[in-house]
This record gives sequence, structure tokens and C-alpha cells, in this order.
Amino acid sequence: MKKYQRILLTGAAGRLGTQLRAGLAPLTETLRLSDREEIENPSSNEEVLLCELGDYQSVLEATRDVDAIVHFGGAVYENKFETILDSNIRGSYNIYEGARKNGAFRVIYASSVHAIGYHELEAHIDADSPVRPDSLYGVSKTFVESLSRLYWDKFGIESLCLRIFSSFPEPADERMLWSWMSFDDCVQYVVRALEAPRVGHAIAFGISDNRLKVVDDSKAGHIGYVAKDNTEAFRDQIEKCAPPKDSEKTSVKFLGGWFCELGHPDDDNQS
Amino acid sequence: MKKYQRILLTGAAGRLGTQLRAGLAPLTETLRLSDREEIENPSSNEEVLLCELGDYQSVLEATRDVDAIVHFGGAVYENKFETILDSNIRGSYNIYEGARKNGAFRVIYASSVHAIGYHELEAHIDADSPVRPDSLYGVSKTFVESLSRLYWDKFGIESLCLRIFSSFPEPADERMLWSWMSFDDCVQYVVRALEAPRVGHAIAFGISDNRLKVVDDSKAGHIGYVAKDNTEAFRDQIEKCAPPKDSEKTSVKFLGGWFCELGHPDDDNQS
Amino acid sequence: MKKYQRILLTGAAGRLGTQLRAGLAPLTETLRLSDREEIENPSSNEEVLLCELGDYQSVLEATRDVDAIVHFGGAVYENKFETILDSNIRGSYNIYEGARKNGAFRVIYASSVHAIGYHELEAHIDADSPVRPDSLYGVSKTFVESLSRLYWDKFGIESLCLRIFSSFPEPADERMLWSWMSFDDCVQYVVRALEAPRVGHAIAFGISDNRLKVVDDSKAGHIGYVAKDNTEAFRDQIEKCAPPKDSEKTSVKFLGGWFCELGHPDDDNQS
Amino acid sequence: MKKYQRILLTGAAGRLGTQLRAGLAPLTETLRLSDREEIENPSSNEEVLLCELGDYQSVLEATRDVDAIVHFGGAVYENKFETILDSNIRGSYNIYEGARKNGAFRVIYASSVHAIGYHELEAHIDADSPVRPDSLYGVSKTFVESLSRLYWDKFGIESLCLRIFSSFPEPADERMLWSWMSFDDCVQYVVRALEAPRVGHAIAFGISDNRLKVVDDSKAGHIGYVAKDNTEAFRDQIEKCAPPKDSEKTSVKFLGGWFCELGHPDDDNQS
Amino acid sequence: MKKYQRILLTGAAGRLGTQLRAGLAPLTETLRLSDREEIENPSSNEEVLLCELGDYQSVLEATRDVDAIVHFGGAVYENKFETILDSNIRGSYNIYEGARKNGAFRVIYASSVHAIGYHELEAHIDADSPVRPDSLYGVSKTFVESLSRLYWDKFGIESLCLRIFSSFPEPADERMLWSWMSFDDCVQYVVRALEAPRVGHAIAFGISDNRLKVVDDSKAGHIGYVAKDNTEAFRDQIEKCAPPKDSEKTSVKFLGGWFCELGHPDDDNQS
Amino acid sequence: MKKYQRILLTGAAGRLGTQLRAGLAPLTETLRLSDREEIENPSSNEEVLLCELGDYQSVLEATRDVDAIVHFGGAVYENKFETILDSNIRGSYNIYEGARKNGAFRVIYASSVHAIGYHELEAHIDADSPVRPDSLYGVSKTFVESLSRLYWDKFGIESLCLRIFSSFPEPADERMLWSWMSFDDCVQYVVRALEAPRVGHAIAFGISDNRLKVVDDSKAGHIGYVAKDNTEAFRDQIEKCAPPKDSEKTSVKFLGGWFCELGHPDDDNQS
Repeated sequence: MKKYQRILLTGAAGRLGTQLRAGLAPLTETLRLSDREEIENPSSNEEVLLCELGDYQSVLEATRDVDAIVHFGGAVYENKFETILDSNIRGSYNIYEGARKNGAFRVIYASSVHAIGYHELEAHIDADSPVRPDSLYGVSKTFVESLSRLYWDKFGIESLCLRIFSSFPEPADERMLWSWMSFDDCVQYVVRALEAPRVGHAIAFGISDNRLKVVDDSKAGHIGYVAKDNTEAFRDQIEKCAPPKDSEKTSVKFLGGWFCELGHPDDDNQS
Repeated sequence: MKKYQRILLTGAAGRLGTQLRAGLAPLTETLRLSDREEIENPSSNEEVLLCELGDYQSVLEATRDVDAIVHFGGAVYENKFETILDSNIRGSYNIYEGARKNGAFRVIYASSVHAIGYHELEAHIDADSPVRPDSLYGVSKTFVESLSRLYWDKFGIESLCLRIFSSFPEPADERMLWSWMSFDDCVQYVVRALEAPRVGHAIAFGISDNRLKVVDDSKAGHIGYVAKDNTEAFRDQIEKCAPPKDSEKTSVKFLGGWFCELGHPDDDNQS
Repeated sequence: MKKYQRILLTGAAGRLGTQLRAGLAPLTETLRLSDREEIENPSSNEEVLLCELGDYQSVLEATRDVDAIVHFGGAVYENKFETILDSNIRGSYNIYEGARKNGAFRVIYASSVHAIGYHELEAHIDADSPVRPDSLYGVSKTFVESLSRLYWDKFGIESLCLRIFSSFPEPADERMLWSWMSFDDCVQYVVRALEAPRVGHAIAFGISDNRLKVVDDSKAGHIGYVAKDNTEAFRDQIEKCAPPKDSEKTSVKFLGGWFCELGHPDDDNQS
Repeated sequence: MKKYQRILLTGAAGRLGTQLRAGLAPLTETLRLSDREEIENPSSNEEVLLCELGDYQSVLEATRDVDAIVHFGGAVYENKFETILDSNIRGSYNIYEGARKNGAFRVIYASSVHAIGYHELEAHIDADSPVRPDSLYGVSKTFVESLSRLYWDKFGIESLCLRIFSSFPEPADERMLWSWMSFDDCVQYVVRALEAPRVGHAIAFGISDNRLKVVDDSKAGHIGYVAKDNTEAFRDQIEKCAPPKDSEKTSVKFLGGWFCELGHPDDDNQS
Repeated sequence: MKKYQRILLTGAAGRLGTQLRAGLAPLTETLRLSDREEIENPSSNEEVLLCELGDYQSVLEATRDVDAIVHFGGAVYENKFETILDSNIRGSYNIYEGARKNGAFRVIYASSVHAIGYHELEAHIDADSPVRPDSLYGVSKTFVESLSRLYWDKFGIESLCLRIFSSFPEPADERMLWSWMSFDDCVQYVVRALEAPRVGHAIAFGISDNRLKVVDDSKAGHIGYVAKDNTEAFRDQIEKCAPPKDSEKTSVKFLGGWFCELGHPDDDNQS
Repeated sequence: MKKYQRILLTGAAGRLGTQLRAGLAPLTETLRLSDREEIENPSSNEEVLLCELGDYQSVLEATRDVDAIVHFGGAVYENKFETILDSNIRGSYNIYEGARKNGAFRVIYASSVHAIGYHELEAHIDADSPVRPDSLYGVSKTFVESLSRLYWDKFGIESLCLRIFSSFPEPADERMLWSWMSFDDCVQYVVRALEAPRVGHAIAFGISDNRLKVVDDSKAGHIGYVAKDNTEAFRDQIEKCAPPKDSEKTSVKFLGGWFCELGHPDDDNQS
């Protein structure tokens, strides 16, 4: 018998959502996939549904009869405030309300490095360091981290807020040499958090075992993640193409990288 | 010549807003008052306007030509999520956007003890301790604290986030013997933050000089607040009426008091 | 009506016990006094009993029908181990068992600077610093601090462990210029701990408002102690008689003073 | 020539004592074994003696002519207070007195997770975190940790207090998947502490290299322990049998596990 | 009889040195004054000598037969490196060598805010925070702080390194509203450090009791300094003349003020 | 194309300088070698020059047209103060001035364990712990660490201050079993610091992956050093010859080892 009867995966059509489908399968009798876009070719243990996270009733449906939620849906880049507000803030609120109403006991949330993007590399922060978002997107991540703390303290719903750094097929630039998280490692972290006997409310840094270490993830040691991958194989190729370095550049200095250099997303249409 | 040309005070018709009108007068040539409700009897240096914080254009107007904003508007108790979302989240976003677009350089924000309400009294937290909201209201306060950090790191707008504990005419129960902040002390804190040569981004605890000390406000020492009032004059009267104590009761154990015992505000209409 | 129906004061015939009788009277309908020595002239609201702390049945009797215990009994200086074991270790265990069996909900315990006597003055420790006892007496104090933590975590009995520095009628030597606690301040601390709405498990430093500050008592701020006395009036007289200073002397260097210079108390009779 | 002339091992007939006999042999010319029970088949470099730890003269004999003591004797589970008092408190005092009188310079003490059992997993404590015993047994462990600090600060006797988590032949339940310490790792830690050029007074966490990390042992890095074993080989079998998880259960939430759920050991015979 | 037989005061002709002459008189039978400039009108208990700090033999003479040294000599502003090197680095080395050779047991050193000038106001540092000098002058201050630590750890000579912020007759600009130290308070701090039974090696922040608090001086609590003065009486006058504030200006942002804006002192003559 | 056009290596004829020549070659088009002694057999990509670090003009020449400096020159043991002053203090100042004048953007500096030699092993310090030099040599290392911080904060020149513990061909005594850094690991650390996208101002501990861990190097994790060597292969041989241990000996107790036992280097010629 598997550990979970039914897990809901939001953002199942996305880059990481797609990876998680295979990884979650061994843990749950049924894996319910939701996204605002069509999900193709569900396997026999997968249920599929279209769901706008900003729509409460729809999310209430999506969370029915689930034990746990892997919440990777919502806007994944910097965006206009109203988009962030609807997809990430209202959307995540709906997810937590769904969990509470329907009795799910654990949520794994795709938070982001952008929740703490304005810390310098040399700060070597850990999970208790104050938030320093680098974008409206990052602010929305801190909102959900805070909201999930309330749902733990008051309603007993556990959460792992996994601050994913840069999860792509391969590291693409010099910053990713330290910030990259392989898909396998990302899936592993989520799986570990679903398997752990106790999560409580934890904030973790999602990053592979890269040679440069810029943050301290020991406060999530009870989840049991052990990174398997690293970026060394990509180093030579990337360094060859790296632009001349300037360690005082905003995008080099801060954890959030180029997000720290973005202007305001609403400047196009509201001036 | 006064320090400020024009300060905007939001929530000017509210309990604390009313107190602030007199306190802010010496600091600014013009004090602009905004609220969703009518404000009566403006003095000669006051401008009055009706403004829904959730309405972007309206807030953009309200923030025009102001140097600083004292942002005390928005929902002041626990409330349905959509109310919190509109008044406190979207509303405060609009305020910060107004500051950015219109060149205000400093915001004093009425945050709340409810941003950290689930810390125990014995924890003796300071401003760097992780947030632990005790309500959706408290979550919205942590949202603005996070948002204001972004506006400081990226756009150079200073903020004091003043976590007001219990600001009422008089302390009303045993908890307020330690959590009370007199109106005068509240006004003083805001004034100090407007006078200080540098605020940066600071989080402060708004509380009078009560005998019981439950938090450490030293991280805001550069604001220069020195509490003048305390609750000793009210002690005997209150202790006489105090119910039998139970130090393990949720409302006694945690900083947030009875907010920690509130159920979910959406339970009435969405089941 | 007074806050407590009945408080038990152990060590009531001792130096501090005698002081506490007057101080506790306003808080309790009945004050039960216990000691191994006769207590003379009980007032009308005082009950008196002879009690060896090391005798379980006797302590069980002494703690019957009490709401709170002010535990100042036991050996008060360095002593043979078997004396310490019986009076302070078994004796305090009996007190906590009495509290548990008889439903007392709060204990104020006379711990001591000698629980942390081997910290240097410059360390400026607080209540969370590791223990460093300077004597078997000090070890017994750390035992009770640990035991009382268990009774809080498992059985819900609150404790204030008050690490009294030097509580005498007057400061008697140069060290006491910083370590002295006046009798009034000592009584005040106990009274505050009985009045506080919540104590939880707290460790506090019992010391007057002397000019030299060697420890940080902020972790007990929720008790509400505000020292009223200090040693300045005694300074000139004491400094005149002070021996030539030697800041590397063990008794000057460490918080515990001359206790750190004591040999082993069992060396006389067991070699 | 071996490092030690003679090491005393107490509790030599016990579960861990038996394991240590082989491990200590290479370090010492003579290994003296003591227990309250018969020890069979001593090897040629072993001396055997019967010894009640609570008997001072007997311990004084046992510690004669030893350089170091591996103190694993005493009650190993929760027990009546008088048993704990005699075996663990008086018994360990006798051991330290024996060390002092007879010139042993180092003690390796079998402390326990139960000294800090009431910390939550998510607290990720280290050796400087305050004690939070979960049982009278745990309180006795904190007593010896404190006593041994005195013997270091005042008498120059070094101690490693090794807080053993769960040292059994195999992990037996889901908690042990993170708390297990293999016999080999336990022996290794003791051996390292005997080999280290300097121990001072150190507190360490005895745990294997399990995937879930709940505590930080870096403060004992100067001992040089490197865990060799882990529980992964046992995971599948144990998880198959694991009861439905409930992460808010006392025994899951706290480091001490089911010890936190034990009632009071004296409740049977003293009511 | 006075506490000291002879105290050496270096920099006795300087701004603070002049103030200290009166303050030190009650503490010492003889006060030896040294400076590179003439000192006029010595009182009967004062000895006067001309001394270049950079000259070893001369300093060896100056320190003969002194119990303590109040070392306020050397360059007091930013300066060419060779000047800093000779006056402050070699000069202070000579002072410590003089203390060691001649048996002085305590040194009070005029360190400076410029040893930590590149910390932000909001950092609220204490004495253990890493150094961040804002000038070559500041670097020389950190050199002496480090050197004095060596002389304590290895040679048992105590030091108070007093990081004076802004000690002038009156506060002169808006920064000094928080950084000012009155002459009386400065003298008081030195006197307290000479009277304290134990100084060890301490680093302290020299600042009056101004309303804005930017650093935490609790690590020097064992010295017993209690600031008596503050800048409130000067506030109105200064704020009236204050330039428009810009909280992101280097000189407003950092503790070191305009020192942080200084160019390199050697740029004039070595390009 | 290589990462650097030209790197200057000072102390190139020394023990570690010799090792670094091969290691730096792949990073730079030209490696400039400087020392006060002749350097033999330069390879085709090496430039050689004689240079006294204490001579400003000479250093200004040596630093011309370099991008980075690996500064391993200067006195390498305890020495007379004037030697330390000239070689290490003035010499390193000259290096930083050369970097500033000539536009080098990064310096790797050979700091030393002797900058923090008076911390106890059990303190397990990290890079933010206060300095505690054990010698004049150590004081000069703290001077450069402080100076380099100024050059970062004010002039934007990055530095890694690498506190090398014991870098020799082989570990030579029991202390080196934990303090040893292999030549390969030393070279690796320097190389990593030259390759890292951002160094900022970092302080690191140079030590191999030895079994005993006495310090915490995580604050330099962004450099990417991963020790490859350790001392286990040398253990048996060394322990066989180790003198009887005495863990309270100064040279065993403190990080600095026998440097802490050295007398004052000027005692021979200045008494």
C-alpha cells in the first residue's frame, strides 16, 4: 500500500510539474494533476483537471479527497501585480483553504530564491534570516510562506516551503554554477518532504550539491534531502562563455541574480 | 520651515488616524487626510479626500505631491480574505506604487503584533525573528512588511513598519497591561520616524514603557522612540477584574492574545 | 479577594525567607511557612510547620492545598555531597512532586549565581547560556533548573528559577558592588513572578540596579521585575577597604566569586 | 606502547558496554570492567570487578590507577526517582570523585538524547542549546553534564558527554530511522574521544550518518567522529510497518520520542 | 590613599586630554602628562614630559613607574599612511611595550567609531561585530584593538578600547545628534574603567545617552558607565540648519559619517 | 583565452609561493613573480622581479598592469616588531595601494591561524568571531584583514583573507593532525578564489579535510573550496612519537599552538 491515497499536484503542466509526475507516482495511489492548461497523456493512476488557482470553487474541487498537495502552480516569473495577486496570492490562499476544508495534512510549496533575493552571497543566510524579496513575484512567495505558517500554527497543516533556486535542464550561466538545482534533485526534495515523519513548518533551500555554497540549509535537515547532482560537468563550457566578471554588479552580488535588476513590472501600462 | 511639504495620512478617520492629525501638524506644511469615510472639520493646514485604498487611480491621486506617507488605513481587524486582500494587500501595494510614482521617500506603516502573534511571550523576539502571523489580518501585515523591503532594496523608499501592539485610550484587560501603547506614544513613534535622519527599512515594536517587557525593540533604536507612558496606573483596577489565570491558555501564552483563538473568518459563508 | 488561596514558603526561617513573609502576605489568603527550624511568631494569616525537605511524606503534607510554592529551602552554601543530595536534590524533587500531586501551578525557586559561576564577567551571559556551576551547591541548582523544566514541559507546572547573586542586608565587598541584590528587590522579584499572568519556564538573574552590569536579564522581561536599589551608597566605604585588585584572580574573574576558589567539600572526611 | 595504562569501563555488562570491550582493547594496556552484574569470560587484558555505583568506597576502588573512565553504567531507562538518584546521580558523583582522587584525567560519559528530549525536531539544536529533559532519567543526564563541567572548570578533568540517541543492533521504528546510532559508530565516538589530543568539556550528539539530520554536532568537531553507518538499508522494511503518521503526536514531534509520552515513574507506588 | 600611584596620560595637550586631566586627578597620586606639544601650567600632582610616541626609548621613559596608561595620543584624523604608521601603529606598540616592560597593568585606549565606520546604522552592532574601518585612521584603531588583545591574552595587561564616537564641546551637525559624547561622559567612561575591579579586554562604544541609539554597548556593562548627557538641548538649533536629508548618502547611511566619503589620504603626493 | 591577463604572486620564492607557481599558470596569460630573493628558472609565461615589499615605489612597479594579486610575501614567522612593521604592515599597505593605483580588482592574501590563535579548540569559531592574535605576526595578519576590508568597502577591491593553518609537505606533529593544509589544498583554495564570480571581502580558514574539525569555514562557502586531502595516512606514525598529552597545555588548548607559548620577540635586544 502506498503512503498517500491521493496527492494533488498543481502546475502539473509546467517545467517542474512535468518532472514531478514520475517522481510522485510511487508515493500515491492516485495522483491528481491540475493546471490551467491541458495536460496530455495521463497515466492510469493520474486524474487530470483544469483549474484556475484564482477561482475558489474550482480549487475547492481540486483539493477534495487529497491527503497532500504539491503546489507548484501560479505565475513563475515577475509579472504585473494583478497577475501575481490573482495567481499567486489568491491562488495559494485558495489552495490552503482547500487543504483545510478537505483535510489535506501536508503541502509542499514551490517557493523561490526570489523570496530572499536581496541578500548578498557573502551573507550565507539560513532559513531564519529575514525575507528580502527581489520582485513582486518574490513578495508573493513570502506571502505564501507567511500564510502557510499561519495554517500550521492555527490549523495544524504542515508545509515545506522549498525555495527553489534555478531548476532547469542544465545550468545556463555563471550564476547557475552555484544556484542550479537539477530536476532529479528537485523531485527528490519534494519526495523526501512527503516521506518525512514530521515536517512541521519548514523553509528549505532547493539547490544541488554545487561546489560553491551560498546558503545554509541545515534548518531543513529533518526532511532528509541529500543533493545528488552538481554543476561541475558544465563548468568549463559555461566559464568559456562567461562575460567579463564584475563582482559589484547587482546581478552578481545578490542571491536573486538578474531579478534584482528588473524594473517594475507595472511600469509599462500604468504611467 | 517645516520638515515636510506634504504628508499623506491614510486611515485618517480611524482611531489612531484621529490621534495622528494633531501630532503630525508640526512636521508638515500640509497634511493630507484620506479615508473611505468622511473626515470632518479639517483644519487650515489639512487637505481631505475620500479614497478607497483598493482603487489604484484613487491612491495615485492621493499620493501626488507628498514627501511621506503615514499609512494607517485598511482593515483593522480579522476579516474575510477578500476584504483583507483588497484593503490591506492591494491597498498597500497601491500606496507603495503611489509613493514610487510620485516620489515620496518615506512610509510609516501601521503593522501589528499580529504579524508575530504566534510567538510565545518567553521567546522575547526581536525584529529579525521570523514572522508568525495569527490571522489573515496578520498575514497581510507580513505581506506589507515584505513588500516595503522590496521598495527599499530596489526603489530606495524607506519604511518603518511599526508593529502596534494594543493602542487604545486605556488598557482594557490583563494582557494589555504589557501590550498597551498609549495614543501619545503611538504618535511619538510615528513622529520620530518622520524626523529621523535615516530610517532605511526598519521593523519596530509599538508598545509603551510597561513593566512587563516581552519583546526587544533595540533594532529600531535609530528611530529614537522613548516610551513615555505605562500601564501601572491601570493595574489594580484591571487585576481586580481579571479572570482566573491559566498560563497555558492560547490567548495568554502567545503575543497575539485572543487573535490566536479566532477561528477562520471565511467559515461563515463558504462552507 | 487575594490572588492566591495558599502559598507555601520553604526555608521560611532563613535570611531571605524571613524577608519574604511580609512581602507575600498581600498576595495570599494563607501563607504556609515551612522550615527545619522553628518559626516564631506567626501572624494570623500564617500557618507554620516543621519539614525536612528530604522527607517525601512530610513535603507531600506541606504542599497540600497550595496554589504556588516559593521554594527557598535547602542548603544555602557549599556542603558535603550527601547534604546537598538530600536537602537540595531530593528535597527539591519532593517539592516538585508535591506540587504535581497537590495541584500547585507555579513554583518560584531560589536558584543561584553559582549555577553559572564559572562564566567570566566579560562574557555577559544571558539565561540561555550553558550552565557552569562553581560548586556542588551550584550543581544542585542546575539540577533543579533542569528538573523544573521537565515539570513544565511534561506536567504544566510553571517555574521561575531566580538566580540570586548576593542578597544580604548590605553589600560586603567589592564584588558585591555589582552582585548585590537588596532584600526589597529580592522580594519584589518573587512577588512579580507570582503576579505575572504567565511565567512558563523562566530563568532570571536576581540582582539590583547596580552600576556595573555583568549579565543580561532580558529573557525574564515578562516577569516585570524593575530593580529599585543599587550599591552606590556603599561604594566609597567598600572601595576604601578593598584589597589591592588583581583582575586575574579567580574570585575576581568569574561570576561566582570566591566559590570558584573553594576546594572540594568532601576532602576533609573521605580521603 | 598503548595510549592508556588502564581504562575503567562501567556498565561493562550492558548492551553498549559489551560492544565497547572490543573497541577499547587497542587503546589500553589493561581494561578494567565493572558492573553490578557478573561479567563473563574476561580476556587476558581485562580486569573484572563487581561494583555498585552508588557505593562510594566501591567506586573509589574501581577507579584506582586508571587514566580514563568510560562511564556507561547506571540505570538506562526511566525509573523511580530513588533508583535514578542512587544509580545515576550519586553513582556518577562517585565516579567523578574517584577520577579526582585517583588522578584519572578524562571521562567519556554516556549521556542521552533524553537530556534534550523536549526540543522539537525543527529546532535543530546544537550542544549549547538549553537542556530540556523528557524524564527523570533525562534530568539525571543533565545533572552529570553539569557536574562534569564543574570537574573540568575546577579540577581539570576532561569529559565528553555523549548524548546517545538510539543505539541498538538495528533501528526498530520510524523514529530510529533518524535517531539510530550503530554499535560501531558508538564505539568509534568513544574511541575518538579517548584519542583526541584535547577534549576539554564537550557535549556531543551520538547518532549515525542517517539521511534525516535533526541536530548539529559541530561543537564536538574536535573529537573527530565521522559516522560510518546509516539507516537506509532498514528503511523499506520499517516504513512498510510504520503506523499512520501523525506529525503532531508528542512522540513524533520531539527529539525524545516516546519518553515524552511516559507518565511519572513514581505514580504507581506513592499516590 | 588613592587607587593609583601614577597614571600616564598620552595626548594630554589634545582636546580630550585636556578634559581628562581634571577627571583623573582624584584617582592617582601622580598624573604624568605626555604630548608632543608643550603642556602648560601643570598642577602640583602633575608631571609633564615631551614625548614622540613613535620613539621607543622616549615612550619607555614615559611609562616608567606607572600603574596604568590612558592612551589618547597619536594622530586624531585621517592622515597620510606614514603618519598613521608612526604615530598610531608604532606609537601604540611602544605604549604597550612600555606597559609590559614597566609593569603597568591596565590601559584605557582611545579607539574610535572609525574602527567600525562602514557598518550601517540599522545594523545595531555590538562589540563582537567584525571591524569595518572607514579610513587608514580607522584601520590603525583596529590594529591597536588587536594588539591590546594580544597583550591581554599573552601578557595579562588589561585594556578598555573605547570607541569614541564624536566628543566635542557641543554636537555640531545632525549626525552628532546621535553620535555625540559629551566631555563629561568621556571622562566618566575613562574613570569607570580605571575604577572597575576587572576590565579584562573590553571594547566599548563611547557615546552619550542620546535619544537615537545605534549601537549596543552591553558587552562593556562590567565597566559601569552610565551616560549622563544627551543632545536634546541642541536638537532644535541643529535641525533648523540641517541640509535636506538624503538617507542613502554615504555619510548618513554609515556609522562613520563623512569619514566614509573621504578619498585616499595619500592621493595628493604619490600619484 | 585565460581568465586573467596578469597575476602578481608575492613571496614567490617561499614555501607556498613555489607551490603556487604551477597552480596559477592555467589561470593567467602572464604570472609575475616577486620576492626579495632570486627566483630561478622562470617559465615562459612567468615574469620575475626582485621587490622589497616595504618599498613603495618598488611595489607600485610590481603591481603595474596586474588584474589580481596573490599576496604571500612578508615575514612568515614571529619576528621583531620593526621587521613585522616593515614587511607585513607597510608591505601589505603598499600592495593594496598598488592594487588601487593600478586597477587590480582582487587580492588573495595569506592570512594565518595566528590571527585567531588564542581561541580555544572547543570554541569552534567561524569567520565572524573576534580576532585573538597569538603573536606580533598574528597582529599583522589582523591588520591586513582590516585594511583589506577598507579597500573593499571604500575602493571596491575584493579580498580573500585565507587563514592558513599549517601548510607543510607533511603534518609534523599531533596538532597538525587537525591543523594541516596540504600544498594541493592550499593551491586549490587560491585558485578557487581567483575563479569565483564574486569574492567580496571574505575571511576563510585554510585547512585540509582532516578528521578533527575545529573551525567552521561556511562563511567562505561562496569560494567553492572543497578540501581533497587529510592527515589520516600520517596518523599512526605521528601518534607513535607524540609526547604524553596534556590537554591543559597552552600549545594544546589554543588554535595557535606553540605560537601562544612564544615569549616576546623584542625581549632579546631592547631590555
